[in-house]
Amino acid sequence: MPSNRAVVYLGPKQLEVQKVDFPELVDASNGKKIEHGVILKVVTTNICGSDQHIYRGRTQMPKGEQLGHEVTGEVVEAGRDVLFLKKGDLVSVPFNVACGRCRNCKEQHTEICKNVNTEADAGAYGFNLGGWKGGQAEYHMVPYADFNLLKFPDKDKAMERISALSLLSDILPTGFHGCVSAGVKPGATVYIAGAGPVGRAAAAASRLLGASCIIVGDVKTERLNLVKQAGYEVVDLTKSTPLPDQIEAILGEREVDCGVDAVGFEAHGHGAEADEEQPQQVINDLMGVVRAGGGIGIPGVYAEGDPKAKTSDIKKGKLLLDFGKSWIKSPSLLGGQAPVMRYNRGLMNAILWGRMDYLDDVVATEVISLDDAVEAYRVFDEGSPKKFVIDPHGMTRKARSVTAAAKVQIPARSSAKATR
Amino acid sequence: MPSNRAVVYLGPKQLEVQKVDFPELVDASNGKKIEHGVILKVVTTNICGSDQHIYRGRTQMPKGEQLGHEVTGEVVEAGRDVLFLKKGDLVSVPFNVACGRCRNCKEQHTEICKNVNTEADAGAYGFNLGGWKGGQAEYHMVPYADFNLLKFPDKDKAMERISALSLLSDILPTGFHGCVSAGVKPGATVYIAGAGPVGRAAAAASRLLGASCIIVGDVKTERLNLVKQAGYEVVDLTKSTPLPDQIEAILGEREVDCGVDAVGFEAHGHGAEADEEQPQQVINDLMGVVRAGGGIGIPGVYAEGDPKAKTSDIKKGKLLLDFGKSWIKSPSLLGGQAPVMRYNRGLMNAILWGRMDYLDDVVATEVISLDDAVEAYRVFDEGSPKKFVIDPHGMTRKARSVTAAAKVQIPARSSAKATR
Amino acid sequence: MPSNRAVVYLGPKQLEVQKVDFPELVDASNGKKIEHGVILKVVTTNICGSDQHIYRGRTQMPKGEQLGHEVTGEVVEAGRDVLFLKKGDLVSVPFNVACGRCRNCKEQHTEICKNVNTEADAGAYGFNLGGWKGGQAEYHMVPYADFNLLKFPDKDKAMERISALSLLSDILPTGFHGCVSAGVKPGATVYIAGAGPVGRAAAAASRLLGASCIIVGDVKTERLNLVKQAGYEVVDLTKSTPLPDQIEAILGEREVDCGVDAVGFEAHGHGAEADEEQPQQVINDLMGVVRAGGGIGIPGVYAEGDPKAKTSDIKKGKLLLDFGKSWIKSPSLLGGQAPVMRYNRGLMNAILWGRMDYLDDVVATEVISLDDAVEAYRVFDEGSPKKFVIDPHGMTRKARSVTAAAKVQIPARSSAKATR
Amino acid sequence: MPSNRAVVYLGPKQLEVQKVDFPELVDASNGKKIEHGVILKVVTTNICGSDQHIYRGRTQMPKGEQLGHEVTGEVVEAGRDVLFLKKGDLVSVPFNVACGRCRNCKEQHTEICKNVNTEADAGAYGFNLGGWKGGQAEYHMVPYADFNLLKFPDKDKAMERISALSLLSDILPTGFHGCVSAGVKPGATVYIAGAGPVGRAAAAASRLLGASCIIVGDVKTERLNLVKQAGYEVVDLTKSTPLPDQIEAILGEREVDCGVDAVGFEAHGHGAEADEEQPQQVINDLMGVVRAGGGIGIPGVYAEGDPKAKTSDIKKGKLLLDFGKSWIKSPSLLGGQAPVMRYNRGLMNAILWGRMDYLDDVVATEVISLDDAVEAYRVFDEGSPKKFVIDPHGMTRKARSVTAAAKVQIPARSSAKATR
Repeated sequence: MPSNRAVVYLGPKQLEVQKVDFPELVDASNGKKIEHGVILKVVTTNICGSDQHIYRGRTQMPKGEQLGHEVTGEVVEAGRDVLFLKKGDLVSVPFNVACGRCRNCKEQHTEICKNVNTEADAGAYGFNLGGWKGGQAEYHMVPYADFNLLKFPDKDKAMERISALSLLSDILPTGFHGCVSAGVKPGATVYIAGAGPVGRAAAAASRLLGASCIIVGDVKTERLNLVKQAGYEVVDLTKSTPLPDQIEAILGEREVDCGVDAVGFEAHGHGAEADEEQPQQVINDLMGVVRAGGGIGIPGVYAEGDPKAKTSDIKKGKLLLDFGKSWIKSPSLLGGQAPVMRYNRGLMNAILWGRMDYLDDVVATEVISLDDAVEAYRVFDEGSPKKFVIDPHGMTRKARSVTAAAKVQIPARSSAKATR
Repeated sequence: MPSNRAVVYLGPKQLEVQKVDFPELVDASNGKKIEHGVILKVVTTNICGSDQHIYRGRTQMPKGEQLGHEVTGEVVEAGRDVLFLKKGDLVSVPFNVACGRCRNCKEQHTEICKNVNTEADAGAYGFNLGGWKGGQAEYHMVPYADFNLLKFPDKDKAMERISALSLLSDILPTGFHGCVSAGVKPGATVYIAGAGPVGRAAAAASRLLGASCIIVGDVKTERLNLVKQAGYEVVDLTKSTPLPDQIEAILGEREVDCGVDAVGFEAHGHGAEADEEQPQQVINDLMGVVRAGGGIGIPGVYAEGDPKAKTSDIKKGKLLLDFGKSWIKSPSLLGGQAPVMRYNRGLMNAILWGRMDYLDDVVATEVISLDDAVEAYRVFDEGSPKKFVIDPHGMTRKARSVTAAAKVQIPARSSAKATR
Repeated sequence: MPSNRAVVYLGPKQLEVQKVDFPELVDASNGKKIEHGVILKVVTTNICGSDQHIYRGRTQMPKGEQLGHEVTGEVVEAGRDVLFLKKGDLVSVPFNVACGRCRNCKEQHTEICKNVNTEADAGAYGFNLGGWKGGQAEYHMVPYADFNLLKFPDKDKAMERISALSLLSDILPTGFHGCVSAGVKPGATVYIAGAGPVGRAAAAASRLLGASCIIVGDVKTERLNLVKQAGYEVVDLTKSTPLPDQIEAILGEREVDCGVDAVGFEAHGHGAEADEEQPQQVINDLMGVVRAGGGIGIPGVYAEGDPKAKTSDIKKGKLLLDFGKSWIKSPSLLGGQAPVMRYNRGLMNAILWGRMDYLDDVVATEVISLDDAVEAYRVFDEGSPKKFVIDPHGMTRKARSVTAAAKVQIPARSSAKATR
Repeated sequence: MPSNRAVVYLGPKQLEVQKVDFPELVDASNGKKIEHGVILKVVTTNICGSDQHIYRGRTQMPKGEQLGHEVTGEVVEAGRDVLFLKKGDLVSVPFNVACGRCRNCKEQHTEICKNVNTEADAGAYGFNLGGWKGGQAEYHMVPYADFNLLKFPDKDKAMERISALSLLSDILPTGFHGCVSAGVKPGATVYIAGAGPVGRAAAAASRLLGASCIIVGDVKTERLNLVKQAGYEVVDLTKSTPLPDQIEAILGEREVDCGVDAVGFEAHGHGAEADEEQPQQVINDLMGVVRAGGGIGIPGVYAEGDPKAKTSDIKKGKLLLDFGKSWIKSPSLLGGQAPVMRYNRGLMNAILWGRMDYLDDVVATEVISLDDAVEAYRVFDEGSPKKFVIDPHGMTRKARSVTAAAKVQIPARSSAKATR
């Protein structure tokens, strides 16, 4: 059995790359041996904004657990009940763990599978959602593999575009789901709150969906600059100019058709309050700037139980929302995790046929080694506009030379600081 | 020019049936003469729960204004630009005033028309929404008549079912819209908050949509009894048994597929708090009892500016909602007024073909004279389980004898009191 | 191992109930042992109109094969990879064989599964579609059982309504799918071609979906009488009165919103040609009588290769359709087998909550023994308005006494003849 | 009153630019004076493939009628009932004439308006559909102007992109409608039959909708070359290689997700039969190459009454279609004219925000004078890969210099011949 190493959570802002057990074909939710799973040799495994919630101690997570839920890998072992995958297949792993046999999975709601977590209708790797081991590791186990995995039809072609394809496990479908939930369609005008990786993926997704004016707002200059360079509109929320005024200056109208929350519960205020956490800020912004009859998608994570919540209401997941005010505008709010499987095949095809060549630019992926992962968490936490892709076995080297040659160094601390 | 009388608002709990001007073909939003309107002789005009918000001084309304927005009538005069209606046509008036020419109207969003109210994207009769005169009157003006009005194909057949058809102007499409927004479809399980007329119409609408288990909750016993007798399940929110437990006792599960808020901002608490207003109670209840992946429709009215709001947050239309807690369940919330036109033709056909013969039973319409209107407001405010239909010209007399013979007396005060 | 008996096809109009092998957990499409299947003790197994195509030698079928695809049963054995079903569970079997792991299954298109038939993207029991054994037997094997089977939540309650629930395996979802494909919704007017079991189930499905005027057409008087007694409108296609005239006499309009083809390729002409097969008759009728912007659902079976086809074009599956003529009406045609799983849970709930109590009346199920099956095929072929439900183990006896006491005799030949 | 000139049909292949009456505010369907119309000074008016059907004598058209239905113009006069447009507004005219007041218009089915043509539920300018005058003229009348017209928000910005925006009146929404009807969405693979202007617009529309592999087929080399240069895949139907083989060579699969018929009833055969008309060829091709569960959109015109039809069946609009063969694949066919209004606002925004800068390249618009129109019809009929945009007043001159400088000459006969 080969050795294995993984990013392990030891407490807030305390991570370590440690030797860990090689994954086993065992159901994390009940400890039973399973035959429907596969073991993957991890090709890429990305660091996500929701990992940062854990890193900062904002989402409850037992110490000693492996992190990571954005995995692309190669099948190295398959259980008896895996019928349609074989060793050597290159696959994308949706971050949702799903059984494919419950009512919700059958209805394309893999984000709320009823069979993979005894405590809630939702499972994910590397979270406190069913106990499934995190995938920032050299090897990773995926249950219900025939159902969960998306196989790339041509391995070589996929490796050529691996940095974009690695986003299929989470942030691209998540950004896309936010847009779909918000009703983005050809010609729509869109405001995306948050210029982090999900917000930037949402910007690219809006473009794929045919949106016209795509505006991204954030409080972090370096992220906004990246978005602007990639050809989208931006609003700087540290400014005292109110959001509708900033939108009007761009669009000629004070409201957009669609709003996407790519921030979640660690939202900040605007202007003078841009340094303060205001967990209801983004949703209220969206109810304000989305026109009557428009739509709001909320893929950004909200939760109860944040140990650092400012008030007991917030700790209980209660938010003071402008719903009463906006009711007359026929509001539509759709929240929750993305059902990755609903979208990943189409997005894969869009990438493989060169229809999203703008994706890498706006997401700014940077491939790093597993050993650099801890430092990458730190830099990302400081506001780096990079999307870090861990390549634990050095398998993407060739790809990197094709897509983004010089992006291999982690930004030095000094430059990272400049992102604030 | 014939005389005209109407229900006029003189202040909280102060109404009077007064002589008023005969309606003119004038645009209420800008005072200009219009040729696209018609004058109707009112056949029926109902009292609505949202009239009660005004009656109780909870929705801002200038004194001296006519009330009423649920009108069915006969065309007695048509402007020169009305092309497809003629004198004598019997029509149902959607409560939304809509131009039929703006983007929203073209997209079947007549509830947020952009051209009929200079202050908001929404117009209605007898509200503070564009200044359009209320229709609890003998005569009523409807602008953009070709667009707005639904003509009954056979006048005699329509008069035979006029008590059910009179509900097409508002509460049946409103209840139906709540159900559609909540995703009600064949086999769905539904919880409807509120056993008032809209809630009861929503129960009937759920049935038309093929729902399986339909549960209605309220704090008013008499309304719940009516619902129960009509063949639906009920939960009594004055009980200390928590709502999910009451649902489980009926359904065998603690969650439903779909939730409908037929209450709005004057919501009350549960159990010991059933006498207290808790404006966020219903929406939070629904986020709790609707299953992951289910839907929530909110046709109940929410607003800002309630002069009697308990807190300044509530006055501003801010509600403390369990959104953070329920985000993991992929919540879907759709609020706002019903776009009546999207549904009224289909619902008319369902009524005319006898597919909703259960409607009258659960809504419990009672036809009254215009002179009885003020008393009806009072009785309704006290919790009467009746839906009052004003017949200002006595035109439905024949119909009444067919559908609901003995329902003509207004319940005496004593029995009305028993509803609390 | 228990013995087993089944209805076996020996050639056109030649069936026999024979001893057959007890089912094995083997993949019919490739002969491999499987662990994802279950063996069912068959509770009910119905005779379907598509079985009749085989019976009459119109659909290609190897001699010696077992017939039947409408099975409800009790789990008596489960493979090692079946995780969510156990012995004793009472389940409904969708007639489609589906893997739950291919793209189509994941997108709720279980009727075109890519993994269960090496010759086409579609599998079914008792057809020439993947070699899966027919279920008109005492015992029946279902592969991918966790995915395919719908478990009844309460076995006793289910047995009380077993005659209606037995229709969940095919004709109720099939009729429902036809209606959904045709766009049936509240208030819609519907014309259903064919008063056989699927057409009658479609009538009930239309009602569940809230349709207003539901018209069923056929050439068989006894079937039309049954439909009429159950409260639907009928048109008699043996009359010389053209179909639009007959519809106008009922509806007051010559066109309906929605059309459903519940006949398929063995369609007959009208009036003087009612005895002749006209395979394009029904689709052309529907393109004629469905209004501009309406919808046409075609669950009726069309195929190529009918050995008795009148022309070589028809044999090749070519139909002379009025598409050019009706193009100006924005036609919408959706054909194909029903994806049963998309609908069966909702329909089950509607039945269990008493929302389809009209179903048994219009479908006219009749429970028979396995030994009576051959005679039932013959009677059904002669136009009997019964839906025959085979109960091979006598397990429904109690149920029968509850729902439809006296329906146990097969109609005598003489009365059956009278149906022509 | 200013003078007016227009392209007038005098018989097959006989057109003339003649002096004609200045348009009046009169309802073409009944001759009555109307107040809801406007007169436009025509800025652009394009020649369409459906004009070519008339030109070739294939669609019935009275001699002496004006042609043209793709108009963009400036309001110069407005009737009393026009409330939201004023002189000087620059507007796009959907080719469908629609009342905005009938059931179909209210449901976004403006292509089948019930009030603008006494002979069918469909009206259009310059066709035999209600008698509305063609718009290849200097001035043009539009009824129900508030409803029908799309106003460009900024006139100067619109004039800068006028060649693309001129396509909003028909071919871009028509191509887009074909794609939407076929279910094109992000990642979908698409086969578009026909490389004429609608097919090319459909290719661009597919791209806007996020399609991955977009393949266009035709028998005309010059058109295919244009499509190829613009970055799409092509199949040459004059080759003897079967269509599925050609698709497989491009895609690696023999079937696509979506098929669009951008040809209609003048379809040709393949390979050796590429010179012969085969009116059912395209629809049968699509049923063959679209995968099970995929979709087929048919915006290409089909009709009855073609005087040059090869058989009496075809003349009656009867087509010999492979529906029986493809039924097992769950076919979905949606045909008919595009409801332009459903799409034109979104497409306008996509153009104005630079999201369809690839549109001009693939459509290859060429602005010409009204006097050149007759020659342009001839050249287009010979297979020119140009989309001719008539500018009767020379108003786009400035625009032309911006977008496509040197495209002003009509191709000489010799080069046009080479397209065969």
